[in-house]
Amino acid sequence: MIQKTKGKQSIRFSEAPYILSSASVAGKKEGEGPLGKFFDVIDSENLFGENTWEAAEGTMQKEACSLALGKIHLGPEKIRCIFGGDLLRQGIATSMGVESLQIPLFGLFGACSTSGEALALAAMSVAAGYGDYMMAVTSSHFGTAEKEFRFPLSYANQRPLSAHWTVTGSGAFVVGMQKSHVRIIGVTVGKIVDFGLKDSQNMGACMAPAAADTIAQNLEDFGYKEQDYDRIITGDLGYVGQSILFDLMRKKGLDIMKNHMDCGMTIFDRQTQDTHAGGSGCGCAAVTLAAYILPKIIKGEWKRVLFVPTGALLSTVSYNEGESVPGIAHGIVLEHC
Amino acid sequence: MIQKTKGKQSIRFSEAPYILSSASVAGKKEGEGPLGKFFDVIDSENLFGENTWEAAEGTMQKEACSLALGKIHLGPEKIRCIFGGDLLRQGIATSMGVESLQIPLFGLFGACSTSGEALALAAMSVAAGYGDYMMAVTSSHFGTAEKEFRFPLSYANQRPLSAHWTVTGSGAFVVGMQKSHVRIIGVTVGKIVDFGLKDSQNMGACMAPAAADTIAQNLEDFGYKEQDYDRIITGDLGYVGQSILFDLMRKKGLDIMKNHMDCGMTIFDRQTQDTHAGGSGCGCAAVTLAAYILPKIIKGEWKRVLFVPTGALLSTVSYNEGESVPGIAHGIVLEHC
Repeated sequence: MIQKTKGKQSIRFSEAPYILSSASVAGKKEGEGPLGKFFDVIDSENLFGENTWEAAEGTMQKEACSLALGKIHLGPEKIRCIFGGDLLRQGIATSMGVESLQIPLFGLFGACSTSGEALALAAMSVAAGYGDYMMAVTSSHFGTAEKEFRFPLSYANQRPLSAHWTVTGSGAFVVGMQKSHVRIIGVTVGKIVDFGLKDSQNMGACMAPAAADTIAQNLEDFGYKEQDYDRIITGDLGYVGQSILFDLMRKKGLDIMKNHMDCGMTIFDRQTQDTHAGGSGCGCAAVTLAAYILPKIIKGEWKRVLFVPTGALLSTVSYNEGESVPGIAHGIVLEHC
Repeated sequence: MIQKTKGKQSIRFSEAPYILSSASVAGKKEGEGPLGKFFDVIDSENLFGENTWEAAEGTMQKEACSLALGKIHLGPEKIRCIFGGDLLRQGIATSMGVESLQIPLFGLFGACSTSGEALALAAMSVAAGYGDYMMAVTSSHFGTAEKEFRFPLSYANQRPLSAHWTVTGSGAFVVGMQKSHVRIIGVTVGKIVDFGLKDSQNMGACMAPAAADTIAQNLEDFGYKEQDYDRIITGDLGYVGQSILFDLMRKKGLDIMKNHMDCGMTIFDRQTQDTHAGGSGCGCAAVTLAAYILPKIIKGEWKRVLFVPTGALLSTVSYNEGESVPGIAHGIVLEHC
């Protein structure tokens, strides 16, 4: 199978793979939000039967994978490889989560862009004929992320309005060549984009330049206009990041205000849920894709969507050493069929 | 291009990609060791002109990439994607290191197995026709790793004899379809293997079961005997891990004592360098491959080598919560041509 590759950063598959199944597992707050009724599983205690947030996040990944497999009656032994990641140091949620599935693992880190990275690599591997089925899984957890990046929850720290609320959730996807109603027709692989911002409590601003770069490159590589997409959906720019994205796109002569959606702005109700800039985390885009975006594409309500998970490559170590927070964003072109 | 895939975990390329170039950048202690004369660059202060260990590690990655590109007169704009990773939380060495190259990035985490993971994905992407050139890069640094996993260097803590010495080094590789003297004829993607060990100061024991699993699976999938490889080379099992590997292989009816080599045992002189179990880190296997293994394959001294970087999926968070240290190992089949 030969792929037509066009432009600098994109791959367009000559035979595009399909998303065969997806599943979403989410926490209590996410269950109370606007997308609550769409998630497959909600745990009211956010612990998923475990004793630590980290083990809970691992269990979310395991449950999301099991559900995605179960929906199409596949055993884990049928999956050739799994591409997985999370936000934590050394990807422990993924290694704890997928261990029992015993699927060959490619561990990833792309901050909150990881769901795009995982889907891109799963689609590339299936389209190349490396296996009949590949999986992509990512997760984030409010408890683990606050501890990892800011303060343990029991410190009850104050949050500025530009701060995000990390989504407790995991989304899993099975990609293969059997026909379904959603195809991954191509991907745009993101570069690191760094505008020199250093505010770890304003990740929307850190990620918006990367999103703008990837979206503009995608349109150029695929020869599309903004309106050729029913929706251009970023991962977790939030309210602050969205307005920066619009400004940056306008400077490139592009207007995506009419068809832009952001998973972080969709998953919570800002007015009643006190989530400030919006949701974030590599679970945010993943569960929104599984529970809300894919069903709309499957029904044909949206014919073509550009899904752009956005990541802020932040670490407490680099932050404390005065380094900036670079961004990265990967684009996945989804089509109804 | 259709790939013949055989067995459960392996991919054998019908048209195998080549390693076109490689480069190694290493620290002072590595420069004083048995492989010192083979490294491309050695920095006697381990800081590579930076002010922090983390920035130094990033700079090592940048220098290794620039050198690998320079050796074959390629500009970074010719590289379609780079697959990179390190041991640090949120992969900051990679994001700082490759930022200036502006190559589309897939960030990886596989602990010390990451050089195998990166080479596997680079080879898979080139063989599938997704680009003419892909790069793989990994790094580790003694200063960053001690801070990340154990204690900051200034604490001057004691180390048990089973502990490893993290290699300060970075290796970078360019993979493409132009003919060279080394081909990646296939890969075996590792699963997580967890024998329940919890000793973060004995990573050889934690990784040996994963190495045994991947090596045995590789032999089965490719239909090879142990002696069909001139060398079976693990990443960083060290002296403790090697003896466990031999035991585990023997239980599987396999004997690799004659042709086994371990990068962690090769890179330092145990007698004079006080490195206990041996070198480790995802720079260890990478610089040993670039500086020592590839030249031997290029010369035809070794005709076929199984390169198996081994990773201990350890984090201070999971360790402090009483979790075990699972292992993972990826196998890369290299042939002289």
